[in-house]
Amino acid sequence: MSVFPFRFDVLRKDPASRARRGRLHTPHGCVETPAFIFCGTKASVKGLAPSQLKAARTQICLANTYHLLLQPGANLIAEAGGLHRFMGWEGPLLTDSGGFQVFSLGHGSVADEIKGKRCRDPSVQKISEEGVTFQSYRDGSLQVLTPERSIEAQCQMGADLIVAFDECTPYHSTRAYTEQALERSHRWEQRSVEALSAHNMGQQALYGVVQGGVYPDLRAESVCFVNKMPFFGHAIGGTLGSTREEMMAIVDQVTSSLDPGRPIHLLGIGGLHDILQGVALGVDTFDCVHPTRLARHGGALMPVTLCDPAERACIVLKRACYARDFGPLDPSCPCETCQNFSRAYLHHLIKAREILALTALTLHNVTFMNRFLQEIRTALEQDRFEEMRTHWHSSCVQ
Amino acid sequence: MSVFPFRFDVLRKDPASRARRGRLHTPHGCVETPAFIFCGTKASVKGLAPSQLKAARTQICLANTYHLLLQPGANLIAEAGGLHRFMGWEGPLLTDSGGFQVFSLGHGSVADEIKGKRCRDPSVQKISEEGVTFQSYRDGSLQVLTPERSIEAQCQMGADLIVAFDECTPYHSTRAYTEQALERSHRWEQRSVEALSAHNMGQQALYGVVQGGVYPDLRAESVCFVNKMPFFGHAIGGTLGSTREEMMAIVDQVTSSLDPGRPIHLLGIGGLHDILQGVALGVDTFDCVHPTRLARHGGALMPVTLCDPAERACIVLKRACYARDFGPLDPSCPCETCQNFSRAYLHHLIKAREILALTALTLHNVTFMNRFLQEIRTALEQDRFEEMRTHWHSSCVQ
Repeated sequence: MSVFPFRFDVLRKDPASRARRGRLHTPHGCVETPAFIFCGTKASVKGLAPSQLKAARTQICLANTYHLLLQPGANLIAEAGGLHRFMGWEGPLLTDSGGFQVFSLGHGSVADEIKGKRCRDPSVQKISEEGVTFQSYRDGSLQVLTPERSIEAQCQMGADLIVAFDECTPYHSTRAYTEQALERSHRWEQRSVEALSAHNMGQQALYGVVQGGVYPDLRAESVCFVNKMPFFGHAIGGTLGSTREEMMAIVDQVTSSLDPGRPIHLLGIGGLHDILQGVALGVDTFDCVHPTRLARHGGALMPVTLCDPAERACIVLKRACYARDFGPLDPSCPCETCQNFSRAYLHHLIKAREILALTALTLHNVTFMNRFLQEIRTALEQDRFEEMRTHWHSSCVQ
Repeated sequence: MSVFPFRFDVLRKDPASRARRGRLHTPHGCVETPAFIFCGTKASVKGLAPSQLKAARTQICLANTYHLLLQPGANLIAEAGGLHRFMGWEGPLLTDSGGFQVFSLGHGSVADEIKGKRCRDPSVQKISEEGVTFQSYRDGSLQVLTPERSIEAQCQMGADLIVAFDECTPYHSTRAYTEQALERSHRWEQRSVEALSAHNMGQQALYGVVQGGVYPDLRAESVCFVNKMPFFGHAIGGTLGSTREEMMAIVDQVTSSLDPGRPIHLLGIGGLHDILQGVALGVDTFDCVHPTRLARHGGALMPVTLCDPAERACIVLKRACYARDFGPLDPSCPCETCQNFSRAYLHHLIKAREILALTALTLHNVTFMNRFLQEIRTALEQDRFEEMRTHWHSSCVQ
């Protein structure tokens, strides 16, 4: 009889906060937590080969079920031998349920959605007890996503960590709608658990998602629900309000009552401040397109000491002030970009619209994030996390 | 007193043709010839970092003086410590004179120009004894390029191999115009030699360009001229006609009478057939955007045995037939792309418009070219070149 190959060990707790240094065991290796999960939306972390992700000390990536269902399809990935083999990434992988994109692309961009900037558009055709019907952005065809279809697709693709199917409600949802959606999401999550036990070969671990929007009582109800379900881990989803304070209040409430034996993932959040605060509240893993998207827009993440206070932990290399800056991008960074290229060269590559600008900055930003999380882990191991956090916040202009 | 750090050694001559196995010594290392020079037009081989070029066993790259003069400028590259340091490439480098782009961008695309598909357009404003006035494609400003300015810029940038300034006449030029341009080009090449001796610190070696268009007597005159000048090497430039037969007739005539002690470069030619024929006629180095541009259009260079005869030494991965082709791109290739990615994954990356499609295919095509040239060198070392060439041509559909 085989042993379930997943385990989450809390190695050390921070004396001054809920922060914890953990280790997440998966069939494709361990993830040292707190950790950052890089977005490989369409089965590729944009611009980097797996060897480059590895060189940047990346532990884990994710791919989006929604995008992969539309192209190339979960069947094809299964035929290819699964997502790991398909994309050539041997480490741990996570897939989401597809729900977030169905709803957020229905509402506008991912970032707009959680801040409620746009209203639901017609790409979400119908939400029923069964699931959601939406229009493909590729060919306009009607697609149905249900808990069973999402879990089946995630099992076919074979990521280590998978996520239960839920409805992601936007910021402007009324309490009544949020409550109704929450109850349905809980039934969908129940069906996700059942669907997984039908497919599961024990090689995948399921995360349940806490919804409830900005309403504390609904969040409490959702926490209560997921704690009772046989999930391996928990993810905090849905709208987290429109300000950092609102977000952290919700995260604080949720993490304070989630099962402390299970890993906690904060969906779609990846700013440096937010990571530090999230870790302090007990979050173990984060994901966000920010580091890789920023790179494609010419931005390089930087230690706060090397940034203009106005630039918020990054520098924008297309600015004319970097045209003759012949020093390395970040002298403290061991990545190939910082070891080989000057800011002036990166500025030139951006002006000349060279692909290397995108890939070199992505490599740096991924390296930066991995080093930042490593710094957090080391601080936790040495009971210096509070000190690190205080120092970091005090040296930043928010 | 310092020794001129350049030397060209002919290590072995092919018994059946003018092909030769050589070694070109430069201050940044040796180039084993025959060799392919990869185009890093704007100081970057599109999509690859220097470490990736190295992993693909690239020996030498080139950059285009014309593009670099407009952005970021030769002064800035000099301030950065020269082109090698600016682009992080430690191996040998070549820059062209800028003349080719001034004239070819004036005539249409580079490819169109040598085939004479378009007429001169207004971006070349004036050709005089002094030099050429043209309009910048970046900001519309008027720029003047003269032999002195080209050599000064090339010295500032500091590539190992540099090229004398000449006029590149298009296919449709009359004999009278070609002759007039040739005489002027020779005077410009003479001025290039003089300009170099004013700047030269002995760290750069100059190539003289053979012009004369499709007119054998003018080519003969040009060969005679460059042989007499103190050039380190020779480049065959200008239009080579509109068919492969015409091109090879010109190359045959030219190489048969060029100084056999100097390396010969064939400008802008890089098809596999053309390289084999060029090598047989005594050409030592080639350059062409084809391998890298093809990659960015989703094409992978392939051993002829792995291609559809209609596909001419490459496969076009966006084709639907590769969607479920789970085998490696080229099982015989050691590059990271072929070792890690299936054709199906590359097809998916192209469909999903992922940057990794471009970079992964570029890495393969660069590796492929370097292996192809290595195969030629090995054949020459073992007196098997004629056999290799015969075998190659007989297994290809032209």
